[in-house]
Amino acid sequence: MSGPIYTDLVTSLPATVPFVGPETQERARGRGFSSRLGANENVFGPSPMAIAAMADAAADVWKYGDPENFDLKQALAVHHQVDTDNIVVGEGIDGLLGYLCRMIVEPGVKVVTSLGAYPTFNFHVSGYGGDLVTVPYNGDYEDPVAIMEKAVEVGARLIYLANPDNPMGTVHPENVIQTAIDAVPDDCLLILDEAYIEFAPKGTAPALDVDDRRVIRMRTFSKAYGMAGARVGYAMGQKEVINGFNKIRNHFGMCRISQAGALVALKDQEHLRNTVLSVELGRKRIELIANEQGLSVVPSATNFVAIDCGQDGAFAKAVLDQLIERDIFVRMPFVEPQNRCIRLSVGQKVDLSFFELQFPMALDAASKA
Amino acid sequence: MSGPIYTDLVTSLPATVPFVGPETQERARGRGFSSRLGANENVFGPSPMAIAAMADAAADVWKYGDPENFDLKQALAVHHQVDTDNIVVGEGIDGLLGYLCRMIVEPGVKVVTSLGAYPTFNFHVSGYGGDLVTVPYNGDYEDPVAIMEKAVEVGARLIYLANPDNPMGTVHPENVIQTAIDAVPDDCLLILDEAYIEFAPKGTAPALDVDDRRVIRMRTFSKAYGMAGARVGYAMGQKEVINGFNKIRNHFGMCRISQAGALVALKDQEHLRNTVLSVELGRKRIELIANEQGLSVVPSATNFVAIDCGQDGAFAKAVLDQLIERDIFVRMPFVEPQNRCIRLSVGQKVDLSFFELQFPMALDAASKA
Repeated sequence: MSGPIYTDLVTSLPATVPFVGPETQERARGRGFSSRLGANENVFGPSPMAIAAMADAAADVWKYGDPENFDLKQALAVHHQVDTDNIVVGEGIDGLLGYLCRMIVEPGVKVVTSLGAYPTFNFHVSGYGGDLVTVPYNGDYEDPVAIMEKAVEVGARLIYLANPDNPMGTVHPENVIQTAIDAVPDDCLLILDEAYIEFAPKGTAPALDVDDRRVIRMRTFSKAYGMAGARVGYAMGQKEVINGFNKIRNHFGMCRISQAGALVALKDQEHLRNTVLSVELGRKRIELIANEQGLSVVPSATNFVAIDCGQDGAFAKAVLDQLIERDIFVRMPFVEPQNRCIRLSVGQKVDLSFFELQFPMALDAASKA
Repeated sequence: MSGPIYTDLVTSLPATVPFVGPETQERARGRGFSSRLGANENVFGPSPMAIAAMADAAADVWKYGDPENFDLKQALAVHHQVDTDNIVVGEGIDGLLGYLCRMIVEPGVKVVTSLGAYPTFNFHVSGYGGDLVTVPYNGDYEDPVAIMEKAVEVGARLIYLANPDNPMGTVHPENVIQTAIDAVPDDCLLILDEAYIEFAPKGTAPALDVDDRRVIRMRTFSKAYGMAGARVGYAMGQKEVINGFNKIRNHFGMCRISQAGALVALKDQEHLRNTVLSVELGRKRIELIANEQGLSVVPSATNFVAIDCGQDGAFAKAVLDQLIERDIFVRMPFVEPQNRCIRLSVGQKVDLSFFELQFPMALDAASKA
């Protein structure tokens, strides 16, 4: 029997993928993690009001969610002072990135991103047969000028830039980003991934200009709003660009409980402010813990911190392995020289105390390995 | 400014789509529905234990869901006596249909389905540029023999067949379906959509044969398990076919709360049995209500019933409009002669009493229109 015939593109894709969740590691280890600090999750969680709304919504889950996400889009439109037609809601930024790649990417299409930036975006680009063109980081910063120059040079149709950046946590001020937007070619689209924007200092996000067809802004309830597991992302942009999603998206793809939770989470801006404050304190504490070991951190505008382990990638990997051995789930950047770092989400106080205790031992063990 | 350049395929797709939820209608009407019986939702809802599990999981929603859906897949593997490698979990059957179309469909690829069958499948096929080839219903039944003959004739790579059927609710016994599976060409894949299988009589589903690469079975928690809003579907098939999904799916696409709910819902088979019993009683009551008006129903093996309004599509549409005017949300088949019917989900007793009251008036008003 020959079996189904797949498209040449899908046949060419690798059968294994890099998405290894902490649960997979826990199953392989045969025991759970004490601290879950590797996935840029927000341990402070959503607004208690949002949790209550989701618990209430569970009883109504026999109904499909509204395929238009109307209530949530309306609340977001008010929040951001744009029209609902400028917003599309999807199954996390990951889901929206997939849809957007489907809209623009096909074999032969050039896509520019930073070397070592978000792997899920690369997964989607490759999944639609695009040619990824990468630009190195400049220090621990994405390099918007070089990215735009490369996009012009190769005739890119799509560009990815995260601000603040993941995995390094660094940030550019709004004028740098606006200059980058202004340099996007007319027939190209810049995805500005602002998943971590609520953690960043004021003056990070350029003013929203939803008449500019060259940029689409990606936001999420997964990070500062603490709802990663709910899968609610949204994108803002020019109406025609936004309406393109409707041609292809899974219209009934959103979880009704998640819709209800996001709507309430958005309203509780006080909880958001408290979260951001807790994260700031946590970042400082991680910096102190690193400093106590004679190490420095990369300045972060997110809810995670890259600790520079002071040597090469092999050493950082050894430190990471030692932390995992000690039941602390962390991750690290993929690419040299960023892979001299480990990346740690801001945890609860108890998480950071546990990390403070284990980190010197992990460093010591890694040094001897 | 020229704006982003989309793929030719996406450019060619219609900008408007047929996904109109009841909420959209409610907003247009300016008032809510009293009875929500149009979307094949299961008004009896999920197991109370599943609701409790989802309410509990809301507090943990700061964590991403397990991208492997391991616990759920393991429970499903035990339930169906297959390996976890034979199962893929996704964002509803809709999401899985989208992924599967992406794997197989591209311009020039022929796909066979019944004329008037599931529009979301057609949306995905067209979305990937496939050529839909349709086969008429035979009476109110999908015609598996004609479908398979057509597939051979046109060299189809993908076939869609729902058993029980939507929108008519009719069902074929297992031997008819097994004969159809046996007739699938070696290089073709049959999607057997069994979304409503738990409502169907014993002897409807052919034995699972996960070594057969020619068929993939789609199941869901949206219908008998009463969790449409949670977006949990799964497919079972041969391991290589199943692993193809991993090349392209949104690995972190599943809502963590939904994962937790489905896991518990599966365990509460007593609730499922009670639901199926309530639905059977409800179907009989709808039949009685129709009979009282001198009308018949199409025999249903699902949680919805097609009432034959006894005239043409225009009349059925008028009846439907009258019911909507009377705050009862219903839908109807798209295609002649099935569009002589309206389609009604089994509601709560109070819903059916309300329908019993309103239906004669709706028929009367439609007759005079």
